[in-house]
Amino acid sequence: MTTPETSYEELKKSLREISLLGSTASVLHWDEQTYMPPAGAEYRAEQVSLLARMVHEQFTAPRIGELLAAVEGSTLIKDPESDAAANTRETRRSYDRATRLPSAFVEELSRVTSLAHHAWVEARKTSDFAAFQPWLEKIIVLKREEADLVGHKGNRYDALLDEYEPNETADGVRAVFESLRGSLVELVGKIMDSGRKAPVEILERHYPAAKQEQLAREAAARVGFDFNAGRLDVSVHPFCTGLVPGDTRITTRYDESYFGDAFFGVLHETGHALYDQGLNKDAFGLPVGEAVSLGIHESQSRMWENLVGRSRAFWKFFLPRTREVLGSTLDGVSDDDWYFAINDVRPSFIRTESDEVTYNLHVLLRFELEEALLSGDLTPADVPDAWNEKVRKYLGITPPDHARGCLQDVHWSGGSFGYFPTYTLGNLYAAQLFEAARRDLGDLDGQIASGSFAPLLGWLRGKIHRHGKRYTPRELARRATGQELSADALLDYLRKKTGELYGI
Amino acid sequence: MTTPETSYEELKKSLREISLLGSTASVLHWDEQTYMPPAGAEYRAEQVSLLARMVHEQFTAPRIGELLAAVEGSTLIKDPESDAAANTRETRRSYDRATRLPSAFVEELSRVTSLAHHAWVEARKTSDFAAFQPWLEKIIVLKREEADLVGHKGNRYDALLDEYEPNETADGVRAVFESLRGSLVELVGKIMDSGRKAPVEILERHYPAAKQEQLAREAAARVGFDFNAGRLDVSVHPFCTGLVPGDTRITTRYDESYFGDAFFGVLHETGHALYDQGLNKDAFGLPVGEAVSLGIHESQSRMWENLVGRSRAFWKFFLPRTREVLGSTLDGVSDDDWYFAINDVRPSFIRTESDEVTYNLHVLLRFELEEALLSGDLTPADVPDAWNEKVRKYLGITPPDHARGCLQDVHWSGGSFGYFPTYTLGNLYAAQLFEAARRDLGDLDGQIASGSFAPLLGWLRGKIHRHGKRYTPRELARRATGQELSADALLDYLRKKTGELYGI
Repeated sequence: MTTPETSYEELKKSLREISLLGSTASVLHWDEQTYMPPAGAEYRAEQVSLLARMVHEQFTAPRIGELLAAVEGSTLIKDPESDAAANTRETRRSYDRATRLPSAFVEELSRVTSLAHHAWVEARKTSDFAAFQPWLEKIIVLKREEADLVGHKGNRYDALLDEYEPNETADGVRAVFESLRGSLVELVGKIMDSGRKAPVEILERHYPAAKQEQLAREAAARVGFDFNAGRLDVSVHPFCTGLVPGDTRITTRYDESYFGDAFFGVLHETGHALYDQGLNKDAFGLPVGEAVSLGIHESQSRMWENLVGRSRAFWKFFLPRTREVLGSTLDGVSDDDWYFAINDVRPSFIRTESDEVTYNLHVLLRFELEEALLSGDLTPADVPDAWNEKVRKYLGITPPDHARGCLQDVHWSGGSFGYFPTYTLGNLYAAQLFEAARRDLGDLDGQIASGSFAPLLGWLRGKIHRHGKRYTPRELARRATGQELSADALLDYLRKKTGELYGI
Repeated sequence: MTTPETSYEELKKSLREISLLGSTASVLHWDEQTYMPPAGAEYRAEQVSLLARMVHEQFTAPRIGELLAAVEGSTLIKDPESDAAANTRETRRSYDRATRLPSAFVEELSRVTSLAHHAWVEARKTSDFAAFQPWLEKIIVLKREEADLVGHKGNRYDALLDEYEPNETADGVRAVFESLRGSLVELVGKIMDSGRKAPVEILERHYPAAKQEQLAREAAARVGFDFNAGRLDVSVHPFCTGLVPGDTRITTRYDESYFGDAFFGVLHETGHALYDQGLNKDAFGLPVGEAVSLGIHESQSRMWENLVGRSRAFWKFFLPRTREVLGSTLDGVSDDDWYFAINDVRPSFIRTESDEVTYNLHVLLRFELEEALLSGDLTPADVPDAWNEKVRKYLGITPPDHARGCLQDVHWSGGSFGYFPTYTLGNLYAAQLFEAARRDLGDLDGQIASGSFAPLLGWLRGKIHRHGKRYTPRELARRATGQELSADALLDYLRKKTGELYGI
């Protein structure tokens, strides 16, 4: 007999199997980025595309819609915070999104973004925006169509943002970002005017890859990364992939003449990994066992990378060990020098290389341009000028070429509009969560300074990780912090930190 | 309109897609053996089992049968050596085999062998045959049932052997093995009576893993392994897996106090890999693009490991480089010492550790016991006695316990009956092929001694690799050598080599 209960069981079984299949594609992706020999690329692309098609077919099958409808009409979901309610709500969101996009559209988007990506790679090499412009035009037309197919209440940006940050809206993002912008621009100005410069040359000494790896591994393990259920490998573009419960892998790359990349990169990916390792293992494949959004995911990576990893407390604990491993490399470097060097603030052209303060301005300008491009207030042809003007206005510098300007990011070429804001949402959530954790845990700095990270991780596990998609990102953060999303915590944190370092 | 041509195209497309899906399972298997963190095991098993089920479902779909029938009744396959004929014939063989086994039976066999495997692991640890015996009994009952389901002409062994060595029969194997047995036993006796002993302690010096790896990589690349289309990694059980065209991976393990394992192991796996790398890339997923049998596959690995890798010619080329890499390790070791050490012949208990001569006697006794177990001439309870008696008779030694006797191999616990003979078939084919290559290529030893392996590899590519499953294994070998399968070439080779080393 078919009952809502049997429908829900069948739905869970199907979702679990679809995730299992999807997770095999993730193993292939990891392998492709780490160990696959070059000549394997052609068939790897075919394998991945086959699996993607199968996952899509299985997830968009009418049967999933029938099962959802059977559960939705039942008392199974009367408690909105129950597993059943959250799983049903979030599966419905993804199902509607997936089924509203006709496969002809999905294929066309995939075809265009694949070609656009190649065009972007070439255009960036020669800093030739004109070569990329026609592709950007095509992609914007397609993204508008996607937004209309998915559905929205007037602002197409919302439909795109929702893919990465469920329930978030352009209005919501804009309100917080605007309260951030002026303060950050002012803060950057003060820092530049302070006349103080961080001794960054300390980080540019010779750091053998093996020693960087040793330190990164020790730090990752110490903060809580479970190497029995994960790995650290090398790839050109660092990433974290939570394959299945029990198997979360991170990567990094080692630059022997710069300490910052690998170490803080590993802490960043470790933050992502701790979230994945903290998800409810028994709910694998179901929304309540999945990360809630890119913004919250990024809050975890940025917290461990920056709020923990670039704190005085952390290096009180870890600098002695770092000196020990590096031998004479840090001779003559004081604890204060080191702390200042790893917290250098300086306007720069490349988002991924920028510091905690200026990073958000990079994100804000992208969000503003994306909104304008989608609405038609900005044409693709005008992007380079608009970009450079905003960089001048926010950061006080002028990109010397488009490769270090509007061609620097991969996102648009891949059709990822609405993705950028999640980076700054991550920083905002990180600061608010860290502040709340400090309130709840007492002497958080003291704990970190003594190498005790379990209280913070335990707090995050309980407040964030274990809930999966039970709540919306904003609701989850509200429950953890008791506050609405705002720029206050991040600004407080940045002002305090830079105030001390730059005497402002 | 449906025509035999459109049916054949659809069949090829389906087979290609099924192989693509199967190849993702192979990536997962490789990852599991090399890099997967321990806690990933549970979900990995689920991923693999899901993919296996999907591959089975897709391959046994009625549509495949319809397509096969449409092609079989057409003129497309009138030339029996055409791609279409070979692909149709071999797909029919696999399709019938797969569809004749009800899924309930397949699941039961999978369940029993999974439990039996665990029981075997424990039983071997404590050398406790009684603990494994009930599982062996269950498996034999199931393997008889499998043989009957698959179909045979009176000897169930044929139906099992056919899975690994298409078209081979127990009678055919027995005839050749019997002509081998007496001669090998006699040869082992003479060697033991010669009073000469190889200076094997040379191989037991300290060989740092990094140097072993360097030499193994150089040798593999030199004989033709394409590292742009493959990898060498470490795993507990060495293997080769040809994932897709352009991606063939081998593994090994390093024992720092024994030179033989890794180096000859890598040459062995390289032999397998050269076959995979030499298959017709355009026929991926189709029988004419697949290896013809385990026996022929093993002929490639054993040829490069033994007939090439343990030859005087090879070490004339490679010993100077080996001495260079190893530094003082080989001080005082003459070329003759080295050659004798790596060609030591001595009866031993463990098949996988045995030399070129005694190895085949290990295989012969397993084949004899398997046949007797399946026919009922031997009961599982009598296996230990029968095993030990044969070891005494063939090798003149008595296993001190069952772990070093009838419990040493994994095969039976996994239900692999009919697999063992392919090892010796591989040695027989290797010797015959090498003899034929020498006839065709002229001064093969001279080529090898000068580090020129391309002629031999080219010969194998043309005679074996590029044909895939176009011919049966015996027919393929007949075309390459001009001779029927026989023990003569292997015996000639072993007699000549040991005759010189042991003065017999």
